[in-house]
Amino acid sequence: MEKTTHVTSELNINNIKSFLEDIESFIFDCDGVLWRADEAVENAAQTIAFLREQGKKVIFLTNNSTKTRNDFLHKIKSFGIDCNIDEVFSSSYGAQVYLSKINFQQKLFMIGEKGLEEELRPLGLEIIKNFEKTNDGIDNVQHIEPDHSIGAVIIGMDTSYTYQKGVYAHKLLAENPNILFIATNTDPSYPVKNGKSLPGAGSIVTMIATSTGRKPNAIMGKPEQLLLDLILESHSLNRAKTCVVGDRMDTDILFGVRGNTKTLLVYTGVTKKEELPSFEYQPQYDTRTIGDLFTLFQKL
Amino acid sequence: MEKTTHVTSELNINNIKSFLEDIESFIFDCDGVLWRADEAVENAAQTIAFLREQGKKVIFLTNNSTKTRNDFLHKIKSFGIDCNIDEVFSSSYGAQVYLSKINFQQKLFMIGEKGLEEELRPLGLEIIKNFEKTNDGIDNVQHIEPDHSIGAVIIGMDTSYTYQKGVYAHKLLAENPNILFIATNTDPSYPVKNGKSLPGAGSIVTMIATSTGRKPNAIMGKPEQLLLDLILESHSLNRAKTCVVGDRMDTDILFGVRGNTKTLLVYTGVTKKEELPSFEYQPQYDTRTIGDLFTLFQKL
Repeated sequence: MEKTTHVTSELNINNIKSFLEDIESFIFDCDGVLWRADEAVENAAQTIAFLREQGKKVIFLTNNSTKTRNDFLHKIKSFGIDCNIDEVFSSSYGAQVYLSKINFQQKLFMIGEKGLEEELRPLGLEIIKNFEKTNDGIDNVQHIEPDHSIGAVIIGMDTSYTYQKGVYAHKLLAENPNILFIATNTDPSYPVKNGKSLPGAGSIVTMIATSTGRKPNAIMGKPEQLLLDLILESHSLNRAKTCVVGDRMDTDILFGVRGNTKTLLVYTGVTKKEELPSFEYQPQYDTRTIGDLFTLFQKL
Repeated sequence: MEKTTHVTSELNINNIKSFLEDIESFIFDCDGVLWRADEAVENAAQTIAFLREQGKKVIFLTNNSTKTRNDFLHKIKSFGIDCNIDEVFSSSYGAQVYLSKINFQQKLFMIGEKGLEEELRPLGLEIIKNFEKTNDGIDNVQHIEPDHSIGAVIIGMDTSYTYQKGVYAHKLLAENPNILFIATNTDPSYPVKNGKSLPGAGSIVTMIATSTGRKPNAIMGKPEQLLLDLILESHSLNRAKTCVVGDRMDTDILFGVRGNTKTLLVYTGVTKKEELPSFEYQPQYDTRTIGDLFTLFQKL
């Protein structure tokens, strides 16, 4: 279904001009593209500045649900990249927009970090997360009685996740088929410093999906299309003249392939060039690093 | 692969005698077969006593990793069922036997209840479970540094499971491909009273399998064959004359089908008769309740 016949073109001195002419807007994944952990990718800031000079629209998009859009704005700026809050999109913000769009008016049960809670707060709904902790042990946890007036369970990355929170989500979802199951994203792991990782939002989502036999009714993050539609709509972008730039095939590039945008893969993050043949879909363009957009154009 | 051509025979007055003549040993699943939550299934104790009178060998087997064999012995006896400790097998005990069989001599990291720990203790190995809890938050949990002299991660049902335990297991498994990943069982949920359930061992196992991209190297519980081999070997049972009795197609009956034993499905637990056609494999026999073995024979 996601099979594409594109052969990937490497950006070079011959195609950089037409590449830039074809594209009006760029949607950038952040970690692995503009920076790696706390280190800027070379010429990332210059590339963004250059694209703005060329009149391109620039959007910053992250699956990370643990921070607010404002946190990301500060992080982007900390690398010397010019940015406005309306150019920043995250899976937590996506959850806010989604719930608002479906006119959701009930209580929410949330498994997630503060960033998610802060993005949900503007909805003005009651958010339940810290129910009273009972003692551990099956005899105790089986008596956890969730508030059945809750209408949705939303799960993101949560470093204070416990079995008891899991029981609360499990009972809500297993005992009421009508309650909404929302995942911020399905990233299995969460990259941290030194090439290491932590269990990601997707691993917690999978635990509850497994225990309840339910699939999330909505997934906010890439490669799902909700955020793409939201970005295109809110900024009135032309889908065919938009390019998704990312370092991961299974989130970023798949996001663009599914969305029929142009796609550019960089090799400063997760996916390695030698892994490309193992994917059924391919990016339209690839290049070593985002800085190449700037340096190639300088050479013209 | 697990497709069988058997048509299921319902036990009745005409086939009960030959059924009993063909079988020398019975392996009983417990919850859903002999009792439901805290209530005995009618005539369960009489059936076991009757089978013993007929010279049959009786084995009690549970995937439940939270209790010790002794705990199960007491539970079985509390329903008036005669039982000896060497007839009781559980996934925790299986883990002990497995680790002993492969001559495992390193430290263990365990996610599980006391019952699992107590069954592992006879191995005389250092068991790590309560590492120092850091503060929550990504900046803190990313600095959890596991003891890399640990040689195996064993995961069972754990009502005191936390994200931090998950990080510990994740880092061990993600950063060292040689470390063993052992699951007590893969039951997605854990049945409790009133038809309700909790997230099961399998849901915790799946969280860590998802985050690390690893599959368990060994799974102790049904439908995996380790416990069957162990039971047949330790009691010198004839596989072809052994019958697995259970209430779940995907654990109990599949366990017997894979193991080429006879199989008997009862309808006092999870699987309903109308669900049978949806399975590719079938039990050889079915009957409403385990008490039918006793009552049918009385009618002869």
